[in-house]
Amino acid sequence: MATYPPAFLALVEDLARLPGVGSRTAGRLAYFLLRSPSALSQGLAARLAGLHQGVRACGRCFNLAEGERCGVCSDPRRDQRTLCVVEEPKDLEAIERTGEYRGLYHVLMGVLSPLEGIGPDQLRVKELLERIRVEGADELIVAVNPDVEGEATVLYLARLLKPLGLKVTRLASGLPLGAELEFTDQLSLARALQSRREL
Amino acid sequence: MATYPPAFLALVEDLARLPGVGSRTAGRLAYFLLRSPSALSQGLAARLAGLHQGVRACGRCFNLAEGERCGVCSDPRRDQRTLCVVEEPKDLEAIERTGEYRGLYHVLMGVLSPLEGIGPDQLRVKELLERIRVEGADELIVAVNPDVEGEATVLYLARLLKPLGLKVTRLASGLPLGAELEFTDQLSLARALQSRREL
Repeated sequence: MATYPPAFLALVEDLARLPGVGSRTAGRLAYFLLRSPSALSQGLAARLAGLHQGVRACGRCFNLAEGERCGVCSDPRRDQRTLCVVEEPKDLEAIERTGEYRGLYHVLMGVLSPLEGIGPDQLRVKELLERIRVEGADELIVAVNPDVEGEATVLYLARLLKPLGLKVTRLASGLPLGAELEFTDQLSLARALQSRREL
Repeated sequence: MATYPPAFLALVEDLARLPGVGSRTAGRLAYFLLRSPSALSQGLAARLAGLHQGVRACGRCFNLAEGERCGVCSDPRRDQRTLCVVEEPKDLEAIERTGEYRGLYHVLMGVLSPLEGIGPDQLRVKELLERIRVEGADELIVAVNPDVEGEATVLYLARLLKPLGLKVTRLASGLPLGAELEFTDQLSLARALQSRREL
């Protein structure tokens, strides 16, 4: 990279700090931006500069928000008595895309992971308890990924919240639609068997 | 993406215009930037905003340059009588990395590709001829990729420049170091046979 101008090298270096972007990809992106009309890089620059001012955490559910409350929390038509607990805003987004859910959310900002030193204090668990105490709720749906950390989080929240008289549920595990038994991993198939439903 | 704040959506949209970045990757990158200290996105914004001002094409060889002349052209120790013709600045960079070449360059900004409507007029061929007329040269090394378009470009330049009394050469084709005959494609192996050298 010795012959490149400093402005180019600095951009490559900064791009390479993004996840999944190595120095080769960073060089390719920088070169693409250089050959594109400068409006593209100028626009991107403006978006980046305004990102942290334009986005904050919702004061109630910690979803991404423009103002004090996120789009879901500020919609009065949502069912205020049902809370869906998710790991991150992108999981909330995935559930919204189904069009099946009309309640509110609570974003934990992670899951329990003792190996990575993430306990309840690193998550928005205290805020969840306080919110339930103040606002009340009928049902809590724990919608975390079906892996070891998710499992631990489900069990922890159930133990914590069922004594408060809440109905605590979790997403069903089983075969995804379109799956083939032959190619389904043992654990998923075992879980689908255990959770079989009567017709 | 319906529930995301506009500042977040706009960034995702702009990132997705980069090559090799789909909307899913764009979302992941935007989310990473949001969770990182704002210095990262601010820094990147500054680099992007300054890119087109800080980088221009060298007035002599069309390599990326900070000022009027690129780093290679402004180095008086380079052999001024040998020109290496490359497709793009990143190819120039690759040759520089070998440490084997001490001459100057000329960046074509592409190769001949009739199918894509790229003829000599779309490349820096006129500038190359003018440069040779004014500055003179002893040898022209055509260092383009060994594919169909590269081949056409080599033949075209040879036909154009040999009548001017220049020595026109091209990069050797053959087996890359470390290759295994068994796994080498037929064309490369055929070329290596045709270009065999006596010991």
